[in-house]
Amino acid sequence: MVDSSQYARFISFEGTEGAGKSSLIVALADYLRARGEAVTVTREPGGTPLAESIRALLLSAGAQEAITPQTELLLMFAARAQHVAQVILPALERGDWVLCDRFTDSSLAYQGAGRGVDAVFIQQLIAQVPIVPNLTFWLDLPVELGMQRAQKRSHLDRFEQEKTEFFERVRQQYARLAKQYSDRIKPVDATQTPEQVLSQVLDYINL
Amino acid sequence: MVDSSQYARFISFEGTEGAGKSSLIVALADYLRARGEAVTVTREPGGTPLAESIRALLLSAGAQEAITPQTELLLMFAARAQHVAQVILPALERGDWVLCDRFTDSSLAYQGAGRGVDAVFIQQLIAQVPIVPNLTFWLDLPVELGMQRAQKRSHLDRFEQEKTEFFERVRQQYARLAKQYSDRIKPVDATQTPEQVLSQVLDYINL
Repeated sequence: MVDSSQYARFISFEGTEGAGKSSLIVALADYLRARGEAVTVTREPGGTPLAESIRALLLSAGAQEAITPQTELLLMFAARAQHVAQVILPALERGDWVLCDRFTDSSLAYQGAGRGVDAVFIQQLIAQVPIVPNLTFWLDLPVELGMQRAQKRSHLDRFEQEKTEFFERVRQQYARLAKQYSDRIKPVDATQTPEQVLSQVLDYINL
Repeated sequence: MVDSSQYARFISFEGTEGAGKSSLIVALADYLRARGEAVTVTREPGGTPLAESIRALLLSAGAQEAITPQTELLLMFAARAQHVAQVILPALERGDWVLCDRFTDSSLAYQGAGRGVDAVFIQQLIAQVPIVPNLTFWLDLPVELGMQRAQKRSHLDRFEQEKTEFFERVRQQYARLAKQYSDRIKPVDATQTPEQVLSQVLDYINL
């Protein structure tokens, strides 16, 4: 396990579709850069050419054949292993802040609660990931509202096409994780305005 | 765990490069089909469109970026999960023999002994695979001889480009596994003629 406390902050952002993660990350990166901080913005699955190739398989799979929940889980962690080694750890070693759209909690929420993969197995995979976020913001909002927001986008990927019940299970899992890891995972009310969300996040970061 | 004993035989073939797995599988499939048996011939990584896409990432990766041992391992198991669910289990349920070029032992040999990934973690991944081969033939030959054979092919993939020491570690691991799982893994002297190899394999299959 890499001791990330010696580095700048590694922050992950979690939530169901349409919660506003991307906009928040852009706003926070702008804020930090305006203060002279070096910031690496990245996302999962993806973040390296190989991991983006895996992302493409994950988001479009199902056209040719049904992807099994276990295949999905293992592809997520394959992309993550590459992303951590190639992008996240080098960025933290350089002294960058790293703002990451989704990380290990997404696996417990989507593949675990959403798809029903055994949580013990997911924890075995997480135990092999050499770093834990210093902070995780869980942008929470009612599932229906998030789905309305996401549907305004041009194209829904394989995850965004899931039904309400799926996202309800994902949301409940985030709630459980936020309780279990309350030191790390901070819930943020994502029905607020973007300015209010950023302000709440900045309070936690305590710069 | 699926009880494969109720089905026809699930046989995997293992060995370092140039051991003659492919030729043996073709010869054995011909032999079985001539006796009226239904046979599914498949390979890992691969076997389904998605798993073949993963295979392409695995064999060519490194052009753009160095693939980490853990990424390689997880991609192998992602392809395997898909292959087992979509090809191997349905074939066994139909009553086919399944002849599979590489299976879980390759992960212990190549990613474990070859690349140095923690064997405990690999065993955790294997524990999630719902089926174990009824028989595994380990085609053994001196590494140098196998490399000479493989080099006669038109193009060497990312694994075939490894050095002698890598394949020595892989071979030693196969020897350990054959001892540990002697009921399942049968060593075959791959320096014999193809006819002798097939004959030895048929003795074990005992048809």
